[in-house]
Parts: sequence; structure tokens; C-alpha cells
Amino acid sequence: MSAYQLLQDRFKRIGALSGAQSMLYWDMATMMPPGGAEARAEQLAVLQVLQHEFLVAPEVEEQLALAEAEAELRPWERANLREMRRLHAEAAAVPGRLVEALAKACRRCEMQWRQARQQSDFAAVAPALAEVIALVREAAAARGEAQGLSPYDALLNQYQPGLRAARVEALFAPLRAALPELIEAALGQQAAEPTPQRPQVPFPLDRQESLARRVMQQLGFPFDQGRLDTSMHPFSGGTPDDLRITTRWDQADYSSALMGVIHETGHALYEAGLPAAWRLQPVGLARGMAVHESQSLLLEMQVCRSPAFLSFLAPLLAETFGSDPAWDAGNLFRLATRVERGHIRVDADEVTYPAHVLLRYGLEPALLSGDLPVAELPAAWAEAARELLGVEPPDDRHGCLQDIHWYDGAFGYFPTYTLGAMAAAQLYRAALAAQPEIAEDIARGDLSRLLGWLRAEVHGQGSLLEWEALIEQASGRPLDSAIYLQHLRARYLES
Amino acid sequence: MSAYQLLQDRFKRIGALSGAQSMLYWDMATMMPPGGAEARAEQLAVLQVLQHEFLVAPEVEEQLALAEAEAELRPWERANLREMRRLHAEAAAVPGRLVEALAKACRRCEMQWRQARQQSDFAAVAPALAEVIALVREAAAARGEAQGLSPYDALLNQYQPGLRAARVEALFAPLRAALPELIEAALGQQAAEPTPQRPQVPFPLDRQESLARRVMQQLGFPFDQGRLDTSMHPFSGGTPDDLRITTRWDQADYSSALMGVIHETGHALYEAGLPAAWRLQPVGLARGMAVHESQSLLLEMQVCRSPAFLSFLAPLLAETFGSDPAWDAGNLFRLATRVERGHIRVDADEVTYPAHVLLRYGLEPALLSGDLPVAELPAAWAEAARELLGVEPPDDRHGCLQDIHWYDGAFGYFPTYTLGAMAAAQLYRAALAAQPEIAEDIARGDLSRLLGWLRAEVHGQGSLLEWEALIEQASGRPLDSAIYLQHLRARYLES
Repeated sequence: MSAYQLLQDRFKRIGALSGAQSMLYWDMATMMPPGGAEARAEQLAVLQVLQHEFLVAPEVEEQLALAEAEAELRPWERANLREMRRLHAEAAAVPGRLVEALAKACRRCEMQWRQARQQSDFAAVAPALAEVIALVREAAAARGEAQGLSPYDALLNQYQPGLRAARVEALFAPLRAALPELIEAALGQQAAEPTPQRPQVPFPLDRQESLARRVMQQLGFPFDQGRLDTSMHPFSGGTPDDLRITTRWDQADYSSALMGVIHETGHALYEAGLPAAWRLQPVGLARGMAVHESQSLLLEMQVCRSPAFLSFLAPLLAETFGSDPAWDAGNLFRLATRVERGHIRVDADEVTYPAHVLLRYGLEPALLSGDLPVAELPAAWAEAARELLGVEPPDDRHGCLQDIHWYDGAFGYFPTYTLGAMAAAQLYRAALAAQPEIAEDIARGDLSRLLGWLRAEVHGQGSLLEWEALIEQASGRPLDSAIYLQHLRARYLES
Repeated sequence: MSAYQLLQDRFKRIGALSGAQSMLYWDMATMMPPGGAEARAEQLAVLQVLQHEFLVAPEVEEQLALAEAEAELRPWERANLREMRRLHAEAAAVPGRLVEALAKACRRCEMQWRQARQQSDFAAVAPALAEVIALVREAAAARGEAQGLSPYDALLNQYQPGLRAARVEALFAPLRAALPELIEAALGQQAAEPTPQRPQVPFPLDRQESLARRVMQQLGFPFDQGRLDTSMHPFSGGTPDDLRITTRWDQADYSSALMGVIHETGHALYEAGLPAAWRLQPVGLARGMAVHESQSLLLEMQVCRSPAFLSFLAPLLAETFGSDPAWDAGNLFRLATRVERGHIRVDADEVTYPAHVLLRYGLEPALLSGDLPVAELPAAWAEAARELLGVEPPDDRHGCLQDIHWYDGAFGYFPTYTLGAMAAAQLYRAALAAQPEIAEDIARGDLSRLLGWLRAEVHGQGSLLEWEALIEQASGRPLDSAIYLQHLRARYLES
């Protein structure tokens, strides 16, 4: 057996363990009775440790070197090898005791954060956060050293392989410059329009669910290889052939659940479309979190908040919930594009959302380097919020305590949200340019042509290319924040 | 770290993998969309292989020897070590290529069997069965040699550690002698009684389910650490703190689902009551399949088909399905104890069921040794059925094609059903003798006192003792088929 084949077998095993882990995580969030928590934590921990052990086993380094010297590898195999090398290097860089210490610190900090957020008491969690940051810093330095990257680049690289801070900065700078004015202008234009009418509450949960399933069907969700269930925090999980998406329902608000389902459907369709020939191999995996987010946002923001799709949705809403003057397509569009200077990222609209991301992206490298001491985070947050969003949080619950990410050790993740939004705008424009019929399809609720394009240009590419090469190949040009800004201006200032 | 501690860590990991496997199996049977089948098979296979690898790793043999020489082990630790040794010896005895060949042959044979059973065509599956038997024989010989057992004893030992053919024979001989007459007499007595009245169909599924949950609650099923769901084939799975039982529903028959739920609840309560301090360790596991079956049958047969419990159930049935003259406690008892000479084991009543087991137990050693050629199985089956049950199957679908077990490689399993029924009768009698109030409790639907006794005497003992020592300690005497026969006579000839 060649070194490459040995590696392929090893990663197949790792892939199957990762799939098992994903299913058990889904079960924990949707089905598991409370008594199962401890046993499940143990199962997940063992699956995690085994993947790590297989990834860093002493023979891997030599097998990689031998395989890399094999002359006759095809491009997909070579890309697979490149991804294997990256995963191995990342895992091998961090000593086991640090992995464990970080995992423990994150668990402790996350628990304290839940309490602290409820009581809006940042001081209560600050020491635990400082400990997490110290350990993240150490792990990032180790990863960076092994891969020739700065610590922050090593963190970005974990969530979006190939992403570097310099590139984030180049893409974000125009956004930072344009956004305050754009928000102001969008609010001005909105004030000049009729106030959108809200539909009559309540929205019975069973009808919401059947509407959501109807819409998922329309978007191309393959129910013979996936499920929709309910969980406290919506997510998209499972494996490419067994997609598990979840949502939560609210009697008073059909829209957040429906848009959430659409968002997760975008993630799921990406997974479903990954190259079937490379299941369980690294090159068969999704091309990083920014690309993943581009697929959910393309569906949610580009397609489903468009006037065309909302004109398709309007009669379905009337059929589902009974007639209501609010089910007018124009009114639905005004509701779906309502802009507001808010404090909470996850409740933010499409225009202010990137400002929330810029805020966090502006702070996290300084937190990591130590330039921003943890104790000064609330003040720094308030200042950045005033500058970027135009509002200051009334308390830390509405400020630096709102997101789980940092408290759970996820530094370098926030940029992927807005990079995903950028890529979504660019990819959708490219799809429309390549197949103009897509626009009419969407007004009829038919997503099959768009999905076909995405399958060919994005999903089916797996991790063959680096992420920006993928976007460039699919859209015909390098990723460009100008296209995203054009989208925002067109939708919020010119429609 | 001592050798014993190293082993404990190893088996904790194996236990967690086994728990993960159990949850994924449950998901496959209850939740998984069809598209997930292939990925799931791969996940389960990897989890299986890893458990095997950890069990047979080269260092285990030495660690076992070192640990066995440690002087200061407590009794539970020593029993844990004994179970580790057994699991290791069983796993190490069979070479990997044989394990794989057997698994493949079983998969192939099982698929052919599904087809063959449908078409009642034994010849179509006979070659595949012969292949399975040849491989089971080889594996049994290897296991036997490693443990100083005959091949058939090695098979029995896999399902019920400590069980030997000589002991089965000693316990089954009185049964074989008494059963034909007992069946005849029960049928005679039944003919002299009023024909039981069947309740009006249909039984709406939602009401069946709420009744089943009500009864589970009454039996002590802990819903904070378990679930009831629907699957094609009912089973009890999950882990001790996360019990997953399933049933299937039939609009025309509330009783088979309800009795099935009660049966699986018995299995689940055993798991739930296993010693919490020994979770994931071999000594913390259930004490074999015969003991497991004793716990399901104690609940289903001894308790829930008794006049006392049925008098508690009668008003619940009326409340659930509406009034019906059939909901008379005496009538329910006659329905629940109806005896019939049938062909199908899983549909059999309490009196003819052991005859079905004797039939299979009479044939399988001969099949394995080759004394009974596969081609002659249908004829041998028919002859044994005539002798033991008094009826000959009209075709092989009602004969040697009815059970999956042999086609799936499970030889040595059938005896555990009837050994479980024997142990159930003996344990229940002992519980009543120890705490006579249990009888009245049951008429009120209160199982807590009985469950307390079972927890202390059986469940909480895990695998500390060998199985017959466990039964003897709990019931005050060696396992005795006379008690089982007394139970059958009392219920079917004297009530």
C-alpha cells in the first residue's frame, strides 16, 4: 500500500469518527434526556481525543513526506494531501496538555459567562476570560510557529484556511469607511417610506413548521437525506448524506424561525453538494467557515429577502396563517430589510450586521496580544459601538457579554461572518450573470437552477482550491468588498 | 499508574465507544433518513473495529497478568479484572480476517434471508447459511480453544458468560419432559372456560402511546434519563443513564405494543439500575443475556400478565379507549394467557414459547457440528415441531426461516430466552417471599417496592458475580426449572 493510500485510510477513519461525533452532538441538542449529559460528554471527549491521536500519530509525518514525493498523484489527491498536511500540522503543533487545559478553561469560562451575562456582570467572568485568552494565545503561538504564521493568522487559519489578517484588513477597510454613512442613509430612506405593517400574532407552531418544511422543499433540501428538528440554539449538523438542521419556534414571530431555517438550509445544501467521491477525506470537506457562511447567507440574504422570493412567499404565508394585509410582497420586503441601530449582533439587520463584526474584529487582536487588558474590554466595546453602530450599550449584557465566542475560546471566528456575506453577494451576482433565468425562477420559488450552479461552482469543489481561488474561479474575479457594498446600496438606498 | 489503573482507563474508553455505538444504532433505527445508511454503517464499523483494537492490543496481555498479581484489589476490582480477562480472551482468540469474513457472510446471508423468508424458499438461502455456519464453527473453535471450552460452550459463553451446554441440558430436560403434557392440559382447561372477549378495534395510536407512557411511569421508567420512540423492530438500547426503548404500534392490536413496551422497560430498568460507580467498566455491565431477559420477562410475564396488575390496568384501558365489556380484569387475564399451538415463536404465548426454544436448541448444536446438514434443516425442523409443539409448519416461512438469529450468525443465543424466563419466575417468587407487600402494591400499579428489591439483588450487582451465583444469592437457591414449571402450572392449570 502506498503512503498516500495509508493516509487515505487513516483519514477515512478520522472522518467517520468526526461524523459519529456530529450525530451525537445533534442528538444531545435535540433528543437526549438530561440524565444522558455526563455519559455523552465522555463519548464526545473520547471521539475527539481519538481523532487527535490519529492525526498526530508519529508515523503520519513520514507518510506525508513519502506521499508528497509520489509523482503520479492526481490534482484532487494532491489537494487532499495538502489538507492532510495542514490538519496534521495544526494538531501536532499544540501539546496535549495545552489542548486539555484550554478545553477545561473554556468549559469553566463558558459556564461563568452564562451566569455573568444574565446578571450583566462582566467582572464576574473577567478572570476566567483572561485565563482563556492566555491559553488561546499560547496555542495560537504554537500553531503559528509550526506553520510560519503570526498567532492571530494561525487563529484565522483554523476557521478559514488560507485567511490572513492582512487580507481581512484589506477587505474590511472599505467597509469600515463606508458603513457609518450607509447606515445613516438607509435609515433616512426608510423614514421616508411607509412604516411596514406587522402581521397579526400568534403564529401557531404546527403551521410554522409545515411552512418551514414547504419552503425547505422549495429550496431543494433533500428530505431523504436530512431532517428538521427543534433545539435551543439553531444549527446545521450531521453529515453530507444525513443532514440535521434545527430551529427554535416562537409563536409571536414566524419570521425569525423561517429565516433561520432558510439559513441552516443553505449550510446543509453546501454539505449535501460536497463531492461524493471524496466523502470522509479532507479534500471532500467544506472549504472553511467563510465559504460555509457564504452559502447560508446567499440563501437567506441574497435570495430569500429579495422582492422576487418574497412575492413567491406572500401567498404561502396567507395560506398558512390566514389572510392579513401584512402579506403584501412590498410590505414583506420592507419588514425583511428593516434597518435599526441595535445592540445585539444576532438580532441585527443586514446593514448593521457588518458593523457588529467590525467592532469585534477591531478588539480581538488587541485582546489576544494583551494590548487591550481584559478589564478594559467593556469601555473599549462601548467606544467602538458608538463609533461603528452609533449607539452605546446600556450594560454589558447588551455589549461585550452578548456573544459566547470569546468565552468559549473562539478568537478569529467573527470575521468569517462578514467575509461570508461578501462572498455571498459576489457569488450570487456571478450566478445571475451566468444564468439570468435564475431571477425569474426565484419569483416562482424554483431554486433548482441556482442550486445547480452552486453545486458545480462551489459545493462540488470541496476543498480542492484555496478559498479565495474558489471564489475567484466561480465568480470570475477576486473577492471584492465593493460588490458587497454595491449590493447593500442597491437594496437599501435604491429600491 | 498501576497496571489495573491502565486497564481501567482502557476499558473506560472502550465503554464510551460502545455507548456511542449504541446511540448511533438507536438513531439509525428511529431517526435516520434513508440517505444516511452508508455513512452510518461506516461510523458503526469504525467504532466496532476500534473497540476490538483496544481490546486485543499487544500490551493488554501483560497488563492483565500484572494486575492479576496485584495483592490489594478489592472484590469489585477483582471481578472487573476477571471480566476484562474474559473480554480480552474472547476478542483475541479470533483472528481479524475471520472476524471480517464472518461479518461479511452474516450481512450477505441476512439479506438473502429477508428475500427467502418472504418467498418461503429455504433453498435460496441455504448456501449462504452453510457459509455462515462454517465461519461460526471456526470462530467458536478458536474461542473455545483459548478458553478451554467446547465450541458450542464458547458460543453460549458469548451471550451468557458462564453458561455451558451441560447446564442448559440439565435445566431444559425437565422442561422437555413436562411441556407437551402441560400444553395439552392448558388447552383443555382453556376450552372449559368462557372464550375471552376481544375489545373493539381500532385503538388510535396517540392514545396507545399515552397509555404506554403512563404504564412506563408506573413501572418506574425514569423519563429524565430515557425515551420511548418508534421503530420497525422494538428494542432497548442506549446507555444506563440515557435509555432508549422503542416499540411499533398497530391500530388493530393495542396489546402487543403495550406488552412490548413493558418488556423493553424491564430491560431498561435493569440497565438504569446497574452500579453507577462502575459505569463504562466491564464489571458495571449487565450480567449476560439470560439475566437481561429475566428482567424483561419478570416485568412482562410475571408482573404485568398477572390478575393483580391486569385489575389495575382495566380502568386505564377504559379511560384510554372508551368503555368496552372486554375491559373486565378476568377477561383481560384470559386474553393475556391465551394458549395456542402456533408456528411463530415471537407470537407465541408463555406456555408454548419454551417449546419453540427447545426446538431450536435441539437443532443448533447439530447444525454447528455438521451432524445436521443444512439441506436437511427443514425436515428436522418439521419433525421437532411436531414433537414439541404438536403442529408442523405449512411452509419454511412458518418454520426454519422465521427467525433472523442463525442467518445473522447468532448460534447459542436461543437458550437465553427460556433461561431468562426460568430466572424471572424464580426471582419474582423470591421477591414476593422477601417482601409480601409487593403483591398488593402491584394491584395498585405500584412497582416501587419490587423495583427496590431488584435494584438491590440484581441490577446493582452488575457483573460482580457469575450469573448463576447471582440468581442463587438473590433467590436463596440454585436456578431450578421446577419453579418455572410450578409457575406455569399455577397460572395455566390452577387459576
